[in-house]
Amino acid sequence: MKSFCEALRAPKKVDLDKLDPSETLGLDKKKGIALLAKNVEELGTLGYNLYAEGKRSLLVVLQAMDTAGKDGVIRHVMTGLNPMGMRVTAFKVPTPIELAHDFLWRIHAAVPPHGDIGVFNRSHYEDVLIARVKSIVSKTIWTQRYNQIREFEALLAESGTTIVKIFLHIDKHEQAERLQARIDDPTKNWKFQAEDVKEREFWDDYMKAYSAAIEKCDADSAPWYIVPSNRKWFRNAAVSQILVETLQGMKLKIPEPIPGLADIKIV
Amino acid sequence: MKSFCEALRAPKKVDLDKLDPSETLGLDKKKGIALLAKNVEELGTLGYNLYAEGKRSLLVVLQAMDTAGKDGVIRHVMTGLNPMGMRVTAFKVPTPIELAHDFLWRIHAAVPPHGDIGVFNRSHYEDVLIARVKSIVSKTIWTQRYNQIREFEALLAESGTTIVKIFLHIDKHEQAERLQARIDDPTKNWKFQAEDVKEREFWDDYMKAYSAAIEKCDADSAPWYIVPSNRKWFRNAAVSQILVETLQGMKLKIPEPIPGLADIKIV
Repeated sequence: MKSFCEALRAPKKVDLDKLDPSETLGLDKKKGIALLAKNVEELGTLGYNLYAEGKRSLLVVLQAMDTAGKDGVIRHVMTGLNPMGMRVTAFKVPTPIELAHDFLWRIHAAVPPHGDIGVFNRSHYEDVLIARVKSIVSKTIWTQRYNQIREFEALLAESGTTIVKIFLHIDKHEQAERLQARIDDPTKNWKFQAEDVKEREFWDDYMKAYSAAIEKCDADSAPWYIVPSNRKWFRNAAVSQILVETLQGMKLKIPEPIPGLADIKIV
Repeated sequence: MKSFCEALRAPKKVDLDKLDPSETLGLDKKKGIALLAKNVEELGTLGYNLYAEGKRSLLVVLQAMDTAGKDGVIRHVMTGLNPMGMRVTAFKVPTPIELAHDFLWRIHAAVPPHGDIGVFNRSHYEDVLIARVKSIVSKTIWTQRYNQIREFEALLAESGTTIVKIFLHIDKHEQAERLQARIDDPTKNWKFQAEDVKEREFWDDYMKAYSAAIEKCDADSAPWYIVPSNRKWFRNAAVSQILVETLQGMKLKIPEPIPGLADIKIV
């Protein structure tokens, strides 16, 4: 079988409307759930080795439309990881202090140190997504950001950070059902935000902005993956598999035994 | 049965030499492992409710001599928690920038926001432990820190943070065995640090400093618990039970349904 990293890597030319968000790569639900369980355990081991080696780090960037499952992926895929070596950072509407800096300032401060896994729940990509769709900054500004992002990610990659960028792809109909579920189930009301409904009007603009961002900022040292996410079980399995393949590709090793240490006796 | 929080709460007068680090409160290993498993699942639910409520936070301070199991507790007890609502901060030797501030500066920056669980792997207590034992600061300085810590923790408690401080108690003989294991097992060599052996010379001074810190900074709004930790299975079970009892005591609730929301239909 083709690896998930190969199968889900963003194409050179991105048109999200042409990519099926219900795709499952031939997997069925039962196999998908089993794959996730196996990978969650494997991620525990790989994360341990990353921490023990202490020389490189992993940065996972999660982007998606509302309800596509950023939070769900973090809960289902990352919960088995030792919290000591990982940190999730959620980037929300920038604060006045953050806005008084360049857009990568708050991002840079949150990148994982060597040994760690960092997960970005939203990221610097918002600055070429909502910032573009809602004209928060001028076209001149958001246009130059694509290159600024590429150079920033290249710096991280050259400094020992393996970068994985994941777009969770759902369609507009699936989002409607998920928003409706937050309304219909009283225990989920607290997740409902009226803005989410308003943002739906801009769906097509967002798809265009996402296509551009993914296409312009995909690189072998900072690849974008497009994960079909209409089916939650496939989404979780696919993200776990991308992470396992990526960490396996790093060929992590715990440090060599220390010569002569074995002679020491503690008293 | 007495709750673990009651049974392990630091006494008014603390003398660590008089507290048995092999105590198991009548639990055997099989029951301890089952209790941990049950609590890890329960912590997932309680953490979800804390996050959903979004109005209060939990701060867990872990302190211990080397090898007592701070890392082990984080791995075994916290791994089931959703990493989105929790953050582990490891406080190491202060950097020059940190040293140019008061000792609580870096600590304050890391306290969990509402909705989150924060875990401190070492903490501001190092500033009345190693700082005292190794005379890193004068007696005048470390003496006034006890009150500074009490006031700082009172601020947090009054601002919606529930504080749980845990000392993992092992004896010097148990530490020798664990250090030796890091030497004898080549795959654990990377965890071995020569300083850990040197610190053993100051064991009695550390016990005195710990006794003083726990005694002076124990408060109903920021309690210290002394967890017998010679047996790893008991240590993990006991910490998980203290956290479950504490979170249950907060009577967390997910927010009420939003009136009128049920009438909305997403199109």
